[in-house]
Amino acid sequence: MSRVAVDISVSLDGFVAGPNPTLEEPLGEGGESLHDWVVATRPWRESHGLSGGETGIDANIMAESIEKVGATVMGRRMFSGGAGPWEDDPNADGWWGDDPPFHHSVFVLTHHERDPVDKQGGTTFTFVTGGIEAALEQALAAAGDKDVAVAGGANVIQQYLNAGFIDDLQIHVTPMLLGRGVRLFDDVQKAPFRLTYTGVIESSSVAHLRLRIPK
Amino acid sequence: MSRVAVDISVSLDGFVAGPNPTLEEPLGEGGESLHDWVVATRPWRESHGLSGGETGIDANIMAESIEKVGATVMGRRMFSGGAGPWEDDPNADGWWGDDPPFHHSVFVLTHHERDPVDKQGGTTFTFVTGGIEAALEQALAAAGDKDVAVAGGANVIQQYLNAGFIDDLQIHVTPMLLGRGVRLFDDVQKAPFRLTYTGVIESSSVAHLRLRIPK
Repeated sequence: MSRVAVDISVSLDGFVAGPNPTLEEPLGEGGESLHDWVVATRPWRESHGLSGGETGIDANIMAESIEKVGATVMGRRMFSGGAGPWEDDPNADGWWGDDPPFHHSVFVLTHHERDPVDKQGGTTFTFVTGGIEAALEQALAAAGDKDVAVAGGANVIQQYLNAGFIDDLQIHVTPMLLGRGVRLFDDVQKAPFRLTYTGVIESSSVAHLRLRIPK
Repeated sequence: MSRVAVDISVSLDGFVAGPNPTLEEPLGEGGESLHDWVVATRPWRESHGLSGGETGIDANIMAESIEKVGATVMGRRMFSGGAGPWEDDPNADGWWGDDPPFHHSVFVLTHHERDPVDKQGGTTFTFVTGGIEAALEQALAAAGDKDVAVAGGANVIQQYLNAGFIDDLQIHVTPMLLGRGVRLFDDVQKAPFRLTYTGVIESSSVAHLRLRIPK
């Protein structure tokens, strides 16, 4: 049975991106550093067509995350950083070039219709204008027995969380204070509510918190 | 050598208290639940003159926290919930009755002068009008070889953090989303900066994150 999962790196003060994102610095000031631990791992490098990389706890966690996901949902801003009509978007092809690291179906939430794009390595981008529930249905159909990742950004994760669609959270808390930026949890509706830890894993550089949302 | 430490429970979305604190519900809506794990432990109950309580990982962590602290600094609002002249404060004696759980010297930051108060069990309350640095100096002198705890509230912790006085953080992340309230980290200045994990400890109900702030 597929689960709907969020898997994301945050700063100790709860930010998934720093302030002032640009095309050159899509995660804002200091935001890219949240992912230093990811970029260092062998499984992440493999999925990006790169050699080398570290093995160990962080790598195992990344490998698990990659292996279990069969389809991804993301927001338009995570896809390209843009908004509005596609023809006006300077990054309309997305951040990842000809061979994106997903290697499965990716559903992009947008208000602007666009034909699907097939990339190398098994990644397809499908643009969904019917809202978060429609995108999730398509992703679940595409994922088979695997899970659906709600990748981001924070606003999209909050929409799915507030709609009650998220089953699992894996939050990688990096030991950094960003001070400002985009918070993972902001104005969560239906709060307060309790989650359940399914695991807390320490590595040398990150605290991996695994939680389940009771239904 | 004494260290200056913050030891506090937060929700998964980073709140140390819920919204709308009152005299009856000083930690705001849902805030008291952040401390359920603490209240269940034997060392916490002992420090409060209560019998019984759980042993195990959480209890060991609480026992360590209690043992290593020789003096505490806190804000006026944490002490009584009030502000302004003491004679107008309905809770001027503080929350903890005749035998408070500290059993050491507590320094309360206030703008309003007041004579020290000696309580049973070794707790003294000293009211400091000279600012955060003066309070810390007095607390370090009182702590001997032990550590100084900057207990709260969040605003006081942020003041000490921004002034560069905090050495260690122990953050107990409870698996709850509060949605609104008082954030532990809000508008941290000098960010972005990196901390170092010194331990990540899982218990059945809480993720205990231990960090050091590089100097």
